This record gives sequence, structure tokens and C-alpha cells, in this order.
Amino acid sequence: MIKVVLLGSGNVAYHLAQALKSSEGVELIQRYSRNGNNDAYFDVSIPVTFDLEHLKKADVYIIAVKDDAIAGLSEKLPPVDGLVVHTSGSIGIKTLYKGLKKGVLYPVQTFSINQEIDFKKVPLVIETAVKDDLPILQSLACSLSEHVFELNSSQRKKLHVSAVFANNFSNYMFACAGDLCKEFELPFDILRPLIMETAKKVQTMDPHNAQTGPARRNDLAVIEKHIEMLQGEKKEIYKLLSKAISKAYQLKE
Amino acid sequence: MIKVVLLGSGNVAYHLAQALKSSEGVELIQRYSRNGNNDAYFDVSIPVTFDLEHLKKADVYIIAVKDDAIAGLSEKLPPVDGLVVHTSGSIGIKTLYKGLKKGVLYPVQTFSINQEIDFKKVPLVIETAVKDDLPILQSLACSLSEHVFELNSSQRKKLHVSAVFANNFSNYMFACAGDLCKEFELPFDILRPLIMETAKKVQTMDPHNAQTGPARRNDLAVIEKHIEMLQGEKKEIYKLLSKAISKAYQLKE
Repeated sequence: MIKVVLLGSGNVAYHLAQALKSSEGVELIQRYSRNGNNDAYFDVSIPVTFDLEHLKKADVYIIAVKDDAIAGLSEKLPPVDGLVVHTSGSIGIKTLYKGLKKGVLYPVQTFSINQEIDFKKVPLVIETAVKDDLPILQSLACSLSEHVFELNSSQRKKLHVSAVFANNFSNYMFACAGDLCKEFELPFDILRPLIMETAKKVQTMDPHNAQTGPARRNDLAVIEKHIEMLQGEKKEIYKLLSKAISKAYQLKE
Repeated sequence: MIKVVLLGSGNVAYHLAQALKSSEGVELIQRYSRNGNNDAYFDVSIPVTFDLEHLKKADVYIIAVKDDAIAGLSEKLPPVDGLVVHTSGSIGIKTLYKGLKKGVLYPVQTFSINQEIDFKKVPLVIETAVKDDLPILQSLACSLSEHVFELNSSQRKKLHVSAVFANNFSNYMFACAGDLCKEFELPFDILRPLIMETAKKVQTMDPHNAQTGPARRNDLAVIEKHIEMLQGEKKEIYKLLSKAISKAYQLKE
């Protein structure tokens, strides 16, 4: 049985707590909460402490806090013997305080506190500073998810920039569409099934084969009319993306 | 019973044929296929003609062909008494040949021939040139889908530019992520659940509230490192979108 202490009270910590509670071979023995935010969401059966000096002895300590709080929190830990892992895609393993046994457990997913998720399907990227620490992190990760990948910090950073396109930028495209609906007095609900299907398609297809639209066809008449309807950043984004798409597909065909 | 003739053999025609076959109050009496492509996919019970002179008498003729083929095909139709509608988001109703009773039935969705879809959930945007023709198109649309919206050509064009962001541009973000995975020798499968969840979130949330990532936090250190890892168009896209996101959220908070 792998004993785990979880540090954090945000979206990632919440979903990790749920997954840890329901996974075999793992025991979530304590959670550390700095400020008590969101504590009401967490399973009441998980013991909570607000004091780092009261951390229990565990095999793995998971630091699930904001990127810029990882270094500071790891430095404030009392001397612990277990493996200390953070959950960030963009923070190097060496950001964890020097005296610790260091690792990373990065769930490649976007979490909201109100949206349930099947954690078994969440890809987990793992790394340890020392080879000897890998087996326990592997065991923990495999208890939590069916999809575990071992990547080093450099590979993880490359994955993270790819994820920015896959998640942050695609979401911003949805936000732009939402802004335009508001401006044009159209209900955003008309576009929601389209958004869902766009993501569903690339679950099996190569996104390049799923590409459609005026830029894909290099339909300059429609592109020109669309540009006239847009202003500011959306006009710039439309121009740049249409140019990139047209170029990519004219080169291919 | 509304009698329908369907003209086309692409993805939209295929899914419309499936929906028309299974909808109550509608009878798909014939399909016109110009070139026979994809004919093997269609339900064999639908009578097919390759000759416009042999079109049957119907209440509604649905032209589901590529945007740039709509005008030509509508001009070549023999004199028909029924309503003739096209299925495009970006083509005005007046593109249909002058002598016809004109309308639009635009399904706001992306279709692949191999991906089944619940047509009842596909938003349908309808328009007729003359008010008297609206009731029959309304009846037809409501038989096919639970979500019918009446918009004029100007509103439909605005919806279409919004849909370019929601679908074409978000898909291109997935394609960029896929390219980066290839370049970095990472499996794209790591990102697929993230893509699915990104779309799922905005089914209920406002995309602005779902926005996360370095640009959302205005985390210049991470943004700078990411830009260094990118080249060409992806570098330009990363810069422009990060700037737009950072600006949008700094203004709001």
C-alpha cells in the first residue's frame, strides 16, 4: 500500500484526491491546505492539516499547487523521507528543493472543480531525479491511470508547449467565437455541438485530415468578406491563421 | 408527408440522407448524384438518378454540394415547382437561380462520411426568400432536428465567421499540436483526452471562464521559453494568441 500525502486545494488537488481515494494499492492519508479555499469540496473523510509541521510520514508527497508556489512550498517542507513530486507541465524537476527526493506527476488534462472526470483515462507523465525512485512513482501512477508516460523534464516542456496549442489556444478560439456571437446577437448554443464534434473527430482522425473551411479551400472571396466583418485582434488572428492554413494545404496538394 | 429530393453525394448529403430516411413526416423520394463518388455509402433503398431531367416532383429540393457548385447546379435544374434550398453557411440565398422558390437549410456541424452523428442535435439554420415558403421548410427542419433557428442571409454570414473560429481555427490548433508532437517525437495520443475535455467544458461553461495557461496568467517566463522552442508560423501564432489572451484577461481583472 503506497501512502500518499497531498498538498493543495485547487482543481488538480481536488481531482487527484478523488482519484487517490478510489484507487487500489494507494492510501491518501492526509491533505495539506494552506488557505482552506475549496476545502468544502473535498471528501470529508480525508484528514486535513493546515500546518506543514504536522505532515504525516508518507511514501509520496504530491505538491499540487500553482506553478509559482511549487519552489517555495517544497523549501518549507519539514525533513521528509518520501518522494516529493509536483504536478506541473512547465516546471523543471530541479525547482523542487535540493534536499528532497524529487519527482513529477503531471496529469495532461484541464480540470474544473465542478466537472467530474474519469481519472483512469487521464494521461500521466512521470519523472524522477534518481532512477531508484521511479518504481514507486510508476506504481502510484499506474494505480491512478491507464495511460502513464515516462518523460524527462526537457520532453515534458515540449509536451507542455504542444498542450498550449491543444487546450489554451483552441479554447481561446471558442472564446473568440463566443465574443462574435455576442457582438452579432447570435446564441452561442448554435456553435456548441460543432465544437464538441470538432474535438470528437480528432480522437481518431489526424487533425490535418479533419481540416475544412474557407482557408483550407483557399477560398479568397469568403476569406476577404470575413476579414471585413472583423475588428482588432480577431481580424489579425483570422488573417494569420487563414494564411497559415492556406499555405499548409496548398503545399500538400 | 413532405417529399424531398436530395442533390449531392458528399458528407453533408450523406448525413442528410440518413436523417431524412429516419425522420417522421418526411419522405426522401430521390437523390441526384453527378459523379457517383461515395454512392456506395448511401442507403441502397434511396432511388438515385444521374440525370437532372429525371428529377421527380417534390416539395423540397435540397442542394447539398460544394459552395462553388451551388449556383451552377441551381441554374441547370429543370423547371420545378418545389422549394429549392442550399445547405451552405456562407452563400447568400440569391445565389440560387432567379426563377426558383429559394431557401437555405444550413446544418451548423462538421461532417465526415465515417463518423455517425445524432442529427436531431444538429442546429439547423433556415431561411426562405419569400415568407410563404417558410412553413414547409420549418416543418422539414423540425422533423430533422430539435434545434432550428431562423436567420436571414446577413445573420447567417455572421454565424459562419463565428463558426470558422469555433471549428476551423480550433481544429488548426489541434493540427499544430499534432505537428509539434511529431517534431518532438511525442505521441499525439497524450493530448487527445485534453482536447476532448477542452470542448466538453465549454458545453456548459463560458469559454472565457474555462481559459487557463501561461498567457491567461501572463506568465512571461514560460511564454518566453515556449517562443524559443517554436519556429515559423507556429512562433507567430503563439506570439499573437498569447498577446491577445494576456490582454483580454488583464483588462478583465
